Amino acid sequence: MYIALDAMGGDNAPTSNVEGAIAFTKETGIGVYLVGDENVLKDLLEKLGGKNLPIEIVHAPEVIGMDEPPSIAVRKKRKSSMYIAAKLVREGKAQAFVSAGNTGAAMAVSKFVVGAAEGIERPGIAVAFPTKKGKPTILIDVGANVDCRPKHLVYFAVMGHTYFKEILKISDNPKIGILSIGEEEGKGNELVKDTYPLLKMTNLNFIGNAEGRDIFTGDFDVIVCDGFVGNVVLKTSESLGTIILEMIKEEVKKSFITKIGAMLMLPALKRFKKKADFAEYGGAPLLGTKGTCIITHGRADARAIKNALKVASQFEETHFNDKLKENIQTLLPDVLLNGKVA
Amino acid sequence: MYIALDAMGGDNAPTSNVEGAIAFTKETGIGVYLVGDENVLKDLLEKLGGKNLPIEIVHAPEVIGMDEPPSIAVRKKRKSSMYIAAKLVREGKAQAFVSAGNTGAAMAVSKFVVGAAEGIERPGIAVAFPTKKGKPTILIDVGANVDCRPKHLVYFAVMGHTYFKEILKISDNPKIGILSIGEEEGKGNELVKDTYPLLKMTNLNFIGNAEGRDIFTGDFDVIVCDGFVGNVVLKTSESLGTIILEMIKEEVKKSFITKIGAMLMLPALKRFKKKADFAEYGGAPLLGTKGTCIITHGRADARAIKNALKVASQFEETHFNDKLKENIQTLLPDVLLNGKVA
Repeated sequence: MYIALDAMGGDNAPTSNVEGAIAFTKETGIGVYLVGDENVLKDLLEKLGGKNLPIEIVHAPEVIGMDEPPSIAVRKKRKSSMYIAAKLVREGKAQAFVSAGNTGAAMAVSKFVVGAAEGIERPGIAVAFPTKKGKPTILIDVGANVDCRPKHLVYFAVMGHTYFKEILKISDNPKIGILSIGEEEGKGNELVKDTYPLLKMTNLNFIGNAEGRDIFTGDFDVIVCDGFVGNVVLKTSESLGTIILEMIKEEVKKSFITKIGAMLMLPALKRFKKKADFAEYGGAPLLGTKGTCIITHGRADARAIKNALKVASQFEETHFNDKLKENIQTLLPDVLLNGKVA
Repeated sequence: MYIALDAMGGDNAPTSNVEGAIAFTKETGIGVYLVGDENVLKDLLEKLGGKNLPIEIVHAPEVIGMDEPPSIAVRKKRKSSMYIAAKLVREGKAQAFVSAGNTGAAMAVSKFVVGAAEGIERPGIAVAFPTKKGKPTILIDVGANVDCRPKHLVYFAVMGHTYFKEILKISDNPKIGILSIGEEEGKGNELVKDTYPLLKMTNLNFIGNAEGRDIFTGDFDVIVCDGFVGNVVLKTSESLGTIILEMIKEEVKKSFITKIGAMLMLPALKRFKKKADFAEYGGAPLLGTKGTCIITHGRADARAIKNALKVASQFEETHFNDKLKENIQTLLPDVLLNGKVA
């Protein structure tokens, strides 16, 4: 197995990426293609002690900037580390693609360069949210698609189910919900109202509408939504978490006593931050693509890169795409399989 | 001026509601109709020293439960404190309606009993989010409407503009954004893409797409969105705030030192909570209704009720609906006024 790593993507690239790849390869023996500037990567690999490992450098002269629009990554900069890494998967040279670069661009490259798996119209990106119960809740889709149709949300549910069961291995029959406003059946917008009866027809463990507040309670294992809503929720949550801690810090600074208090409390805050850290879970997979695609946070450090590579290898080891294909056949009703629902 | 208060709505009703009404009337001299169980309210009013104030009790034998569907409030329980309070506005006996009861029901009653103002197709509920900059950012709509059309979002923008300028009085030309995914024009779903050019045609201070993270930065004054997305954002944010504090508390409990730290930090945490408290802003107005409708949090205490009554009186004193009507005429392009955009 070989994993193609976009070695130039992310705030801490390429150093953290190379460090992460070395740590991963040392631990697992699995091969990594480091895609990026050959000269830079060669020096780094040597310096960081990764010379005699199954790590191969693949040259890519361009880099996708963190603020460049996704269309550039797909249509123009075809010699970028991101594009070439994804192409290695499309060509069958690598089995998985990992990037900590520009999220929108990485999603677009995953969708259009790696491509959707057979039978999947719209791959969906899944993010693990930390919850009160300690185990994560998966929200899918958080931005790979907008203006979804009911059918897409049902497929997201099967993808989320398969991810929760095969990769996270927390439950064999994860509880599935659909993001809505109001708990009862019949509440929500048109998309939710049309998707609800379809989800009820599946063999999934569908337990009904989830509200915004249910994302963090842990009562649901997988919550499906349109990628527009999911992306707004993801960005709102990340930002609110950061701002709450910043606002508390501001208040702490106002007196000597509270400063001492904060110092004593620091270990608890650190433990909290670790638990709440989205990066801990090893990145967000784009489910339903031909090969495995893992998109990690731009802030990813070496440990997060290593985690992402590990998750990517798990997808391959568990034959995720085969399981997904199987689940689509066994969990979905005929009406969705025979193309009668558009 | 008289304000109709749903005296039985909210977790702390009727005591906090009566206390809040007394405090408000003492301070402003403005009259309040206390709508609810006559016997209970009469005793409470006497006990709490509100006898010789311009507070009148209006009997309502029923109460809308916190979990009852909105349809019950509008169609079935027409003798509820909420329904009768709203009816006082419709009949012109009161100028404003305030409720801390079941939010969905209060929205429905505001829309269908008080009714939309002339020229407004869809009233929108506005919520003030605390931001880093100290001043709030208004999100509208947070749940009164789903499956909005572009025209509705443009009207929400004018409502938000008028609210920010006339009631919050923070800026005369508030910065307006549209909630989307991605910053650049052209990013988002169909609704956003179709609304963007219309917003650009208005005389509003429209500054472009806002992402989920922009809600808390304070860079925007008013952000418009479909009520489905807004409601999910509101509930996600409220719940995440609570859960972060709970998770920190759990971690603090694990050692004696961190417990001491937390005790010393308490004043800072309290100041933070006060700043972040949605209730501080005096409830959320449903903008674009015939009379003023203010919906406050179910947890509202006497001070929050008093604040909500104050905000309601400000709407009347500033002739909010006249200003809104004026702004619609001066800020919107002809294409939106002549009915050419559906």
